[in-house]
Amino acid sequence: MRTRIYNARILTMEKGREIFKGEVQIEDGQISCVKPYGEEENRDDINKGIWDHEINAEGNLIMPGFKDAHTHSPMTFLRSYADDMKLQEWLFDKVFPAEAKLTEDDIYWLTKLAVMEYLTSGITSSFDMYKLKHETARASQEMGFRMVLCGDINDFGGTVQDVENDYLKYNKDRDSLISYRMGFHAEYTTSRELMEQLAEIADKYQTPVCVHCSETKKEVEECRERSGMTPVAYMDSLGLFRHGGVLFHGVHMDEADFDIMKKRGMYVVTNPASNLKLASGIAPVKRYLDMGIPAAIGTDGPASNNCLDMFREMFLVTGLQKVYCDDPEAVPAADVLQMAVTNGAHAMGLTDCDCIAPGKKADLILIDLTQPNMQPLHNIEKNIVYSASKQNVKMTMVNGRVLYQDGTFHIGDTKENIYENANRIAERILGE
Amino acid sequence: MRTRIYNARILTMEKGREIFKGEVQIEDGQISCVKPYGEEENRDDINKGIWDHEINAEGNLIMPGFKDAHTHSPMTFLRSYADDMKLQEWLFDKVFPAEAKLTEDDIYWLTKLAVMEYLTSGITSSFDMYKLKHETARASQEMGFRMVLCGDINDFGGTVQDVENDYLKYNKDRDSLISYRMGFHAEYTTSRELMEQLAEIADKYQTPVCVHCSETKKEVEECRERSGMTPVAYMDSLGLFRHGGVLFHGVHMDEADFDIMKKRGMYVVTNPASNLKLASGIAPVKRYLDMGIPAAIGTDGPASNNCLDMFREMFLVTGLQKVYCDDPEAVPAADVLQMAVTNGAHAMGLTDCDCIAPGKKADLILIDLTQPNMQPLHNIEKNIVYSASKQNVKMTMVNGRVLYQDGTFHIGDTKENIYENANRIAERILGE
Repeated sequence: MRTRIYNARILTMEKGREIFKGEVQIEDGQISCVKPYGEEENRDDINKGIWDHEINAEGNLIMPGFKDAHTHSPMTFLRSYADDMKLQEWLFDKVFPAEAKLTEDDIYWLTKLAVMEYLTSGITSSFDMYKLKHETARASQEMGFRMVLCGDINDFGGTVQDVENDYLKYNKDRDSLISYRMGFHAEYTTSRELMEQLAEIADKYQTPVCVHCSETKKEVEECRERSGMTPVAYMDSLGLFRHGGVLFHGVHMDEADFDIMKKRGMYVVTNPASNLKLASGIAPVKRYLDMGIPAAIGTDGPASNNCLDMFREMFLVTGLQKVYCDDPEAVPAADVLQMAVTNGAHAMGLTDCDCIAPGKKADLILIDLTQPNMQPLHNIEKNIVYSASKQNVKMTMVNGRVLYQDGTFHIGDTKENIYENANRIAERILGE
Repeated sequence: MRTRIYNARILTMEKGREIFKGEVQIEDGQISCVKPYGEEENRDDINKGIWDHEINAEGNLIMPGFKDAHTHSPMTFLRSYADDMKLQEWLFDKVFPAEAKLTEDDIYWLTKLAVMEYLTSGITSSFDMYKLKHETARASQEMGFRMVLCGDINDFGGTVQDVENDYLKYNKDRDSLISYRMGFHAEYTTSRELMEQLAEIADKYQTPVCVHCSETKKEVEECRERSGMTPVAYMDSLGLFRHGGVLFHGVHMDEADFDIMKKRGMYVVTNPASNLKLASGIAPVKRYLDMGIPAAIGTDGPASNNCLDMFREMFLVTGLQKVYCDDPEAVPAADVLQMAVTNGAHAMGLTDCDCIAPGKKADLILIDLTQPNMQPLHNIEKNIVYSASKQNVKMTMVNGRVLYQDGTFHIGDTKENIYENANRIAERILGE
């Protein structure tokens, strides 16, 4: 399958490379050539006849897709169900009881709904932490979407044997759309013994461990009471981050926590909309970046956000830092794009999805520059971070396949069918 | 001209009225009938033949359009031009010199670009403060858009005579799309003498005065040094708010300021994206609402935001209050919608555009519920505030005329022509 996207502006996201006019050529899901145009070139007629699929970008922008580096896709059924509550009540009184009723089939349909929304926001892969992950994997694979599954064991479900099995099962085939990283839910839901067992398995495969961490003040305080340490220091003392790790949230941090993360080569994933909505706080993103700790961006699940929209998150990342640091220069647009694309890919272990270059996966999006919010065109990168919204996503391609274009989904199922199932599940579980 | 929007869900924004299924009937720009459907009604066949225009809403949501209660439309040419700077430098070193080069023709085209973007975000009227306002009025009127012009005099331009003339000129015809409220730029750009003259004119017509106020700490501190008072107290002492008023921003407030606003029956307009981006701070919105001071929402101009998107502002209003007050229950979705619609209309003097009811102006939007971010459908109001984006705006109608539908503009001009002119102007002035 040979595809060519021509007459494009291209933002490769390679370090230091500016936007240029040209085309991207794709063969069997991989980028085969990135071709800048000369001044006089006949762009409409390159190797005519050899292409299975030609897309005229009409001057719009091709860039790598966004990476949603922390989410819980099947939580779509809880959207707008339990808003305006504190995190701990929200989680224990509303979310956990509803989640207990989920079946495998539910997970499948609810994931499909989430994937549709990722596609509308130019997200080409997600880092998903949820139970019954084989159903999340099945839905994603059927739709052609790239999903990195994240271990989620805790005292209420899952064993380290599950983690090892999943690690081996989902990382077998390098070309699969599905992969897996080790992880667990959180320090406050997991026994010391289980964490120690997980540290051993991570050691065995020399692989990072991913976990919710330091999301609320309460969580940090309670961990200090139990262990005498911050969650980061405590988990590190158990050996969990010997091969790196990814912290989801990382809002309430000590000086020493940053040092540990830096030393261990860890990533943080910030979830600004969720942290606002649950009144958790504002993560010190500028501090992470200044320390050289790569920060990525996640939407968190649709129960706490409530949407899966990288544009909203990107504006929040920079806007909140500007106020938080009292510095309007904090975290400028180029840094935010790097967080949403490159850092996200690396935090998820997707080393082939971080930029547009030959040999990389064709996980691409086409940004519509002909909407009024993108005009005038004097700084396209800033326009994307400060002005763009889902309305600007003209096309989302994963692994060389167009899954969403001009408002239409190409996902092997109808949207009506997916909505019908999602509503049926929400009604059954939430009793409305 | 008789129009009927049928098979709709309707959110009238009347106090206490829930969403219901029905239709809205419109005659000559005014709502003539709001008809809830009975269980068995044949909805497709109501008074067949008498309609000039029938729109099948297909179950999507009709609601009153959003009111952008503070903006500077012609600043579209500065989008992504001078980001990541402090407000005072940004204003004096970048914005003012560029603005000095604007011609009347520029204002006309740049306003048109802004209006296009308002329409994509379901905004049916804007409260616009800018110079050469006759050109803003001309562009809006030609496009069919409702615009409330706001006085902007200050020491660098404009006299109270201009204010009085504009007040009489633009408020002559109650049916016009254009109206006017008295106002001036800010305390820090306006002499005491000019403010006193304005207070007299406001007195003469017993009308409120609108002004930028208490946007930054620096502004408040410098006013204290000059006058010994906060900007609110100082301006009130000059008699400016005897007939009410509207404060744009209102971020840095004293206890006594709230009391003055309450006593004078004033409005505040919050601009959360702009306040983040310029690191100005977070306005105490919950405090205003708790005090019974009606708060509305503005985008501010595209130079400081950088987009004109009510959905982003709505999420920011509630999200920021939740963190600012450490209270996830702060400013729930229903309050945010009231701010974006009803309070906005009232702050702008648009008493006929605040809800869907017979006799009100047909300034309506159709929200697409068939996008994945709106599913499942168990709480549509929360879905709009927490999840919606421009992508969900299917149709925007002003004064009974469809100006935007399914991505196409009906504004008496082509988008290509407007973009060409806006880019030409940006290049001429900014030298790119």
